Amino acid sequence: MSILAVGSVAFDAIKTKFGQVDKVLGGSASYFSLAASYFTDVRIVAVVGEDFTDDYECIFKKRSINTDGIQRANGKSFFWSGEYGDNINEAKTNFTHLNVFENFNPQIPEGYRDSDILFLGNIDPVLQADVRKQMDGVRLVGGDTMNFWINGKRADLQQTLKLIDVLLINDTEAKMIAQETSVPRAAKKVLAMGPKALVIKHGEYGATIFFREGAFGIHHGPFRAPTLPIEEVVDPTGAGDSFAGGFMGYIASQEEINREVLKRAMFYGGVMGSFAVEKFGPQRLTELTRDEIDARFQMFRDLTHLG
Amino acid sequence: MSILAVGSVAFDAIKTKFGQVDKVLGGSASYFSLAASYFTDVRIVAVVGEDFTDDYECIFKKRSINTDGIQRANGKSFFWSGEYGDNINEAKTNFTHLNVFENFNPQIPEGYRDSDILFLGNIDPVLQADVRKQMDGVRLVGGDTMNFWINGKRADLQQTLKLIDVLLINDTEAKMIAQETSVPRAAKKVLAMGPKALVIKHGEYGATIFFREGAFGIHHGPFRAPTLPIEEVVDPTGAGDSFAGGFMGYIASQEEINREVLKRAMFYGGVMGSFAVEKFGPQRLTELTRDEIDARFQMFRDLTHLG
Repeated sequence: MSILAVGSVAFDAIKTKFGQVDKVLGGSASYFSLAASYFTDVRIVAVVGEDFTDDYECIFKKRSINTDGIQRANGKSFFWSGEYGDNINEAKTNFTHLNVFENFNPQIPEGYRDSDILFLGNIDPVLQADVRKQMDGVRLVGGDTMNFWINGKRADLQQTLKLIDVLLINDTEAKMIAQETSVPRAAKKVLAMGPKALVIKHGEYGATIFFREGAFGIHHGPFRAPTLPIEEVVDPTGAGDSFAGGFMGYIASQEEINREVLKRAMFYGGVMGSFAVEKFGPQRLTELTRDEIDARFQMFRDLTHLG
Repeated sequence: MSILAVGSVAFDAIKTKFGQVDKVLGGSASYFSLAASYFTDVRIVAVVGEDFTDDYECIFKKRSINTDGIQRANGKSFFWSGEYGDNINEAKTNFTHLNVFENFNPQIPEGYRDSDILFLGNIDPVLQADVRKQMDGVRLVGGDTMNFWINGKRADLQQTLKLIDVLLINDTEAKMIAQETSVPRAAKKVLAMGPKALVIKHGEYGATIFFREGAFGIHHGPFRAPTLPIEEVVDPTGAGDSFAGGFMGYIASQEEINREVLKRAMFYGGVMGSFAVEKFGPQRLTELTRDEIDARFQMFRDLTHLG
């Protein structure tokens, strides 16, 4: 199955204790697409500025990602600059220049309309809903959001949640949406708002998928996937988006979408997230082989499975 | 195999959003012993005051825990009072009255010297080392410690770490001992200080066991066990000690001590911790059946294992 990813394609300047980069490919849709590209055909809808040269576009093309939906606008591309201290779970933002992203109005190319799976990256929930309605034939809709929309556009977000099958967010976002202090209680409330499944990412502790009763099979208990205990996280940027890419990508590579597929997808999400943090920017996601990915999947299994 | 547990037996006053209790059985050795009692014979060495009546001792006796090593001293028993707010991972201490525990000098009864496994609860590392030296014939030594000793008696603690086979601590303690900010790096450093294995408890996210190279078998990669995503944690007091009790108890119930046994022990640790938090104090640990424990073990497996 093919995936259509809608989100941001940007430039990042990143500093960690391992060094710094002044301008690398960034944005949620970039990490997502590169991670998903190891599993299936991926198409991107995003907006970039005049500074987005062919060199950058080629990063996608080399991974056979369809870039027809990357709109060109007058001006500069979205640019984020941030750094990480000892707590690699938290970025300190130096600046966020939205630039052309500020007026992003996602247009779905005609050739993308047959996509089987839609991933709504972290953009305005009103735009997410709009894209969703243009893609009536999809089999599964994944989505992301963030504190900015949760606090600023709660009513719109709640409407959008009804259009999303699998929501992928982190602990803090889940608690914020549900206005709860416990993750499991928050999960229950968020599922009541619409999604059939909810993936909550716990940073270095992995992620848990919670299912709405009756969705994806009879047994609806949660499932938890680990992350690798990594001694040296070079650059955590994009780990969550890479998780989403591995997760949705693996689902797209399967014929059926059932609970067992979603469980394995949780592992592949963790696998792609663990690769993403090994080098600055999305570099590591451009140079993997499927063998490396499957070897790491086996490491995740050894890490969690009894004999 | 039998287990000898050395640690605190105390009274606790606990307040959470689910209610409060003014005086219940507490202390690390109490939770540990009750949890371990479902798997093997347990003996306690601790000190209590004159206020420790038969009613309390009977809680142990009903679980066939040997209390011959509970010393009686003039004065009052260790009394801790604390409460939990929205963050159930962090207790706010109202007061800690050490009372007779301040002069605790563990004496090992003659009949305890044949114990197969020794668990050194969270007491002064000098006392831990002293007890360890009295128990030359043991097959495995588990141990715990806390920030108070890590900061206050670092040199003594480092000596004691050489005498411990499996150290069980939490994320913060591991980082503090190693003076590192990343858990995996901290694990590596702590293992270099002596223990063959290190269990790091992550609170609501489970626990990871790290192995020293070559210890407990050739494959030495880490192993992670989950906790149950529990919507209502009634009282988190003693969860870590109950984890240790389930972990060491399960090991004691097996003939060999190898990597696979330690992996299963991680699951049983999580299982006992998950029961402990369901009611105030150690109540839930006094009323379980082995069937309930094994059913929950299966839930932990379903939570983490691919089909």
